[in-house]
Amino acid sequence: MRTLCHEPLSPFCRKIRIILAEKGLPFELREENIWQPSDDFFQLNPAGTVPVLIDETVNGKSKTVVAHSTAIMEYLEETYPKIRLLPGSATDRAECRRLVAWFDEKFNTEVTLNLLFEKIQKRYAGYGPPDMEELRIGLKNLQMHLDYLSELIDKRNWLGGNRFSLADIAAASHLSAIDYLGDVPWANFEIVKNWYARIKSRPSFRPLLADRIPGMPPPRHYDDLDF
Amino acid sequence: MRTLCHEPLSPFCRKIRIILAEKGLPFELREENIWQPSDDFFQLNPAGTVPVLIDETVNGKSKTVVAHSTAIMEYLEETYPKIRLLPGSATDRAECRRLVAWFDEKFNTEVTLNLLFEKIQKRYAGYGPPDMEELRIGLKNLQMHLDYLSELIDKRNWLGGNRFSLADIAAASHLSAIDYLGDVPWANFEIVKNWYARIKSRPSFRPLLADRIPGMPPPRHYDDLDF
Repeated sequence: MRTLCHEPLSPFCRKIRIILAEKGLPFELREENIWQPSDDFFQLNPAGTVPVLIDETVNGKSKTVVAHSTAIMEYLEETYPKIRLLPGSATDRAECRRLVAWFDEKFNTEVTLNLLFEKIQKRYAGYGPPDMEELRIGLKNLQMHLDYLSELIDKRNWLGGNRFSLADIAAASHLSAIDYLGDVPWANFEIVKNWYARIKSRPSFRPLLADRIPGMPPPRHYDDLDF
Repeated sequence: MRTLCHEPLSPFCRKIRIILAEKGLPFELREENIWQPSDDFFQLNPAGTVPVLIDETVNGKSKTVVAHSTAIMEYLEETYPKIRLLPGSATDRAECRRLVAWFDEKFNTEVTLNLLFEKIQKRYAGYGPPDMEELRIGLKNLQMHLDYLSELIDKRNWLGGNRFSLADIAAASHLSAIDYLGDVPWANFEIVKNWYARIKSRPSFRPLLADRIPGMPPPRHYDDLDF
């Protein structure tokens, strides 16, 4: 069996959940509180971060533990190549990986951390109320990123080219976490909205739409396919 | 010809310089001021960051532009596989990529940014003098990372296993930039020092030891192979 140690709203964990589902690989979820990781969890990943994949499918005796979403993504692509989520040529794969890094680093530090950390993670970590200035900056940066997404989607069918790829998965993972907070101004970004509607309707994406944070329900449109 | 747009002390650019040299691929360096990127540079990488690789070797007419060090690293490994810098099995590659991410994310945010940004980049960006508290935190975190490196090297020949790999390259890229500042307490970490001496003596590493920041010379031991 495969186990994914995760946090429900972490975009990095959501990315791996979608990849596993797209590849048709069954897995169990194990929720980790990364603010108080157990000693047992540090054995799996000395960095103390999620996601961590425990892949015991090979023979049930030996198991492979892979930590960090980039390492897991490449491991799954190499080990289960039947359904590929990276494009066929090295140049297109480079463009796809550039976009994954764009969301996992640039979007993450300019938008995700400002909104998700301030609104949700700070509460769980006991760091006090959200900093309004950080929220304002995050929302302003989000507009710039939605402009860039519009530009890309306008000239390609999917983010990384003609086919659905890891670039779409990384972008949708971050946007879906922000959307749980009700912070995406969909009405002003029709092109991005239509692209996101296509992703939302994929079976691999459905389990993410069922995530619920206790005491903090998402806006009504969050799990609505016709939002 | 190949051109690498870079900054001399950027660990991410150093990583690619070493990879290109280890693979025997000739390249020219083009220094970019990422605090004032030109419009031309944003055409190459909308994120405005280095490294960016321009690979014109295929036929001289078409060219491949790859932005972001992870995308470049995977592109070079796929396109020029004669000398491989990732291990042979998917499990070992996963461990190698976990360590690359350890240095490029964890070490970077806990050590490199605290020291390199505060001491050098802030000066060039006109952000004022270093924040002493940030320097203190960076130096304290560095000790923890050197402990972790000692533990890994003690049980393996190289960081990622029996062979020199991208894990060693990523770690040495960050440490070499910090070493330029004279901040690595080598005398207290004999195991790491011996590992670094082995890397320092590789021909691929020599050009990095010749880097000089105007008005800020490195300590004497920086380019000494018997430091």
